[in-house]
Amino acid sequence: MQARLGGSRPKGRTGETSVSPGFADHQVILGIDPSLRSTGYGVIRLAKPFPSTLAQGTIHCPREWPRSRCLARTAEVLREVIRKHRPTACAVEGLFFAQNLKTALIMGEARGACLLTAGEAGLEVYEIAARKVKQAIVGFGGAQKVAVAKMVQRILHLEKVPMADAADALALALALVQENRGLVWRAPKRI
Amino acid sequence: MQARLGGSRPKGRTGETSVSPGFADHQVILGIDPSLRSTGYGVIRLAKPFPSTLAQGTIHCPREWPRSRCLARTAEVLREVIRKHRPTACAVEGLFFAQNLKTALIMGEARGACLLTAGEAGLEVYEIAARKVKQAIVGFGGAQKVAVAKMVQRILHLEKVPMADAADALALALALVQENRGLVWRAPKRI
Repeated sequence: MQARLGGSRPKGRTGETSVSPGFADHQVILGIDPSLRSTGYGVIRLAKPFPSTLAQGTIHCPREWPRSRCLARTAEVLREVIRKHRPTACAVEGLFFAQNLKTALIMGEARGACLLTAGEAGLEVYEIAARKVKQAIVGFGGAQKVAVAKMVQRILHLEKVPMADAADALALALALVQENRGLVWRAPKRI
Repeated sequence: MQARLGGSRPKGRTGETSVSPGFADHQVILGIDPSLRSTGYGVIRLAKPFPSTLAQGTIHCPREWPRSRCLARTAEVLREVIRKHRPTACAVEGLFFAQNLKTALIMGEARGACLLTAGEAGLEVYEIAARKVKQAIVGFGGAQKVAVAKMVQRILHLEKVPMADAADALALALALVQENRGLVWRAPKRI
């Protein structure tokens, strides 16, 4: 996988290269794992022999903050990350299930803040289901979070295993690259 | 109700005035009815003999736009409205049901964009359930949308019945004032 992510373009399943039109132009990718009080983010730059990690972290918001303040804080940090590293594409976790409607709404609010921030900065935003991210990174859609984090560490040659939310965000960015290199059957959905 | 909204402070149910601490300071209120492609907004200023309508409208986003672009456009318009009219409090429709999780997520994203924009501008943001808005404006929680729009027209002395989304937003702003004037049993939830 590292060779793939390192910039080579392998043949797709059908024997044709199937890079999304224009996607190859994206060199710096932002991954976001949205959450009201602990949004993870990670920025990678495609490079050989392996992608470099420009930034990673978690945006913590105290429990006592009103939701609007958490969203504003999340956007503030993401804007700063985008300003500094200039990503051109963004992968957000596609949430296709939730425990209940209330959870879905709150998750949706966090996603909305992230999509808005990325959209305003002109990034192309894609969503990828968590299962597909795991499949892309670990090779198994039901992989545990810690397995994803360890594989992210390995692919990116990081000194430490990244924290859970940041690892998920980095995994999203890596998965977006992999999917657009024709290694997966269906291109991520632009949102 | 007009007298109440016009600035007088009637006694609450228990015979005591129960204005929320500090809420009486809010003179300009923004109501938002969030939606991915047709967010309604309305701004009222408390005045006698009836509140004045500073702005109202709907933010339309074409179906072919990606979601992130719709959210960015919604925030852009709301920011301009806030910049122009300087509201200090904001009422957002509290969505407590949805057809399914997907709808809840998309509604949540729209809400997230609105909460973020209001939060960044320093507004105090409150949510009120649609049913409570109808109860406050029409006196009946199951009232039809057209009845709400007509009552909004009457309370605000508007020449025309406002469009549905804008009417809902104006109704939210009016309901927030009414709830904080001690006429309703439970203060809106700050979010």
